[in-house]
Amino acid sequence: MPDAPLILVNGSPAASISPLDRGLAFGDGVFRTLRMEAGEPVWWPDHLAKLTADCRQLAMSCPTRSEWEQDIAWLAARQPDAVVKLIVTRGTGPRGYRLPDAPYPTRIAMATPLPDFPDPLAASGATVRVCDLRLGRQPRLAGAKHLNRLENVLARMEWDDPAIDEGILLDDAGRVISGVMANLFISSGGRWRTPVLDACGVAGVTRARLLGILAAEETHIGLADLLGADAVLLSNSLIRLRWVARLGERTWPRPADFDDLMEKLCSGA
Amino acid sequence: MPDAPLILVNGSPAASISPLDRGLAFGDGVFRTLRMEAGEPVWWPDHLAKLTADCRQLAMSCPTRSEWEQDIAWLAARQPDAVVKLIVTRGTGPRGYRLPDAPYPTRIAMATPLPDFPDPLAASGATVRVCDLRLGRQPRLAGAKHLNRLENVLARMEWDDPAIDEGILLDDAGRVISGVMANLFISSGGRWRTPVLDACGVAGVTRARLLGILAAEETHIGLADLLGADAVLLSNSLIRLRWVARLGERTWPRPADFDDLMEKLCSGA
Repeated sequence: MPDAPLILVNGSPAASISPLDRGLAFGDGVFRTLRMEAGEPVWWPDHLAKLTADCRQLAMSCPTRSEWEQDIAWLAARQPDAVVKLIVTRGTGPRGYRLPDAPYPTRIAMATPLPDFPDPLAASGATVRVCDLRLGRQPRLAGAKHLNRLENVLARMEWDDPAIDEGILLDDAGRVISGVMANLFISSGGRWRTPVLDACGVAGVTRARLLGILAAEETHIGLADLLGADAVLLSNSLIRLRWVARLGERTWPRPADFDDLMEKLCSGA
Repeated sequence: MPDAPLILVNGSPAASISPLDRGLAFGDGVFRTLRMEAGEPVWWPDHLAKLTADCRQLAMSCPTRSEWEQDIAWLAARQPDAVVKLIVTRGTGPRGYRLPDAPYPTRIAMATPLPDFPDPLAASGATVRVCDLRLGRQPRLAGAKHLNRLENVLARMEWDDPAIDEGILLDDAGRVISGVMANLFISSGGRWRTPVLDACGVAGVTRARLLGILAAEETHIGLADLLGADAVLLSNSLIRLRWVARLGERTWPRPADFDDLMEKLCSGA
């Protein structure tokens, strides 16, 4: 495989996990994807806090900060500019949903070379489509970046056209939730909003930062709100921020304050 | 670990899978759990058909019958009375939800000794509880036994009391769907019914057989219907059939035709 990633499993270089891992059996775990630039994991305290919170949401123990930082240092020494993916599962266990008596989490850290993302300040806007798949609502899992991601897989299968950058996901009540890979902010009349994620979606680190920078409100958002918005932004830890230029026949110009927002987002500690 | 299972990965004895497997990353796969008795996988044609159908539901290719049968023969020679678990994932791939250009499924076959299930004909009835967790509704995944099973994990975490045998799951509209580990049939006025599984739940092999044996109807079932039923049965490929004796204050006697039903179920080819 091109760009074979560097992989640590429980701190040791390894190319394998147990077929008995509950991460495989049930998707019983959570993950993070983040940028590493010049050996520094970007927004690391935020990512660590989110990983810990997501583990807590599943009543799982999370590896310690020092364990993760040892892993990241090992990856950084070998691949200083990278996409880092951190996975924690509830570990191996006997067959069946019941938790093992003494679960011991599996900790996986991987790095792949930072792909050639378009320079967000120079890039043209994104072209998006609306996915047919509607997200199910599960408040107990909402917000967490857990390993049950078949909805995202099925949604991403809906298009092959490389001109489409992202798919917009609605829930089964018709509310806009997010992109398949990114979160979403809309501006109307000078006011920024992002979907409330209390029943589905992933409340990520970049979204949390943008909520502050934009003084955005979490609200229910319909497709008509999105189409009627003055500007639409996509965000995640890898692309950071991208503006939406087209959804079907609807087009938007580059937001006047885009460079300013990107600057504020990237200059944050 | 006691009872360490026998494991084949893509036909070879193996204790590992790749951390890049999409089964781990996204729960992108399906599975089956079945009984093997004296080296014979029980209801094998049904299980193979269901595995193939579930792969098709996720637009995945399924390993061939002859590949599975080679795996099962290898397991049967070493552990003739076993719980067999078969997993198929979309295989390894680069980071991201987008399908690999040429996905190659990962095929896992495992066997653990058949546990000491209570003899269903001699056993007392099951004590069940109603779970707090409500299943989300996702028609695109409904019926399939896919690897996104966090709802079952969370539901099974709700009780520790060994006197509770099973938890009843309702969906977010309040409809009874199934147990955490088993499907469910109720009898009222001589008519058998089982929940329609068009938005959640797993439409398993034993359920399909019982639909025929009981001439049961698939309908919406509320908790009041369940509590008001003359008899309630639980089914899956491991326990086969068990009658429900208690739910809170509600108790049921052993159904008069239980032994007859069990006999019909077990005598099927």
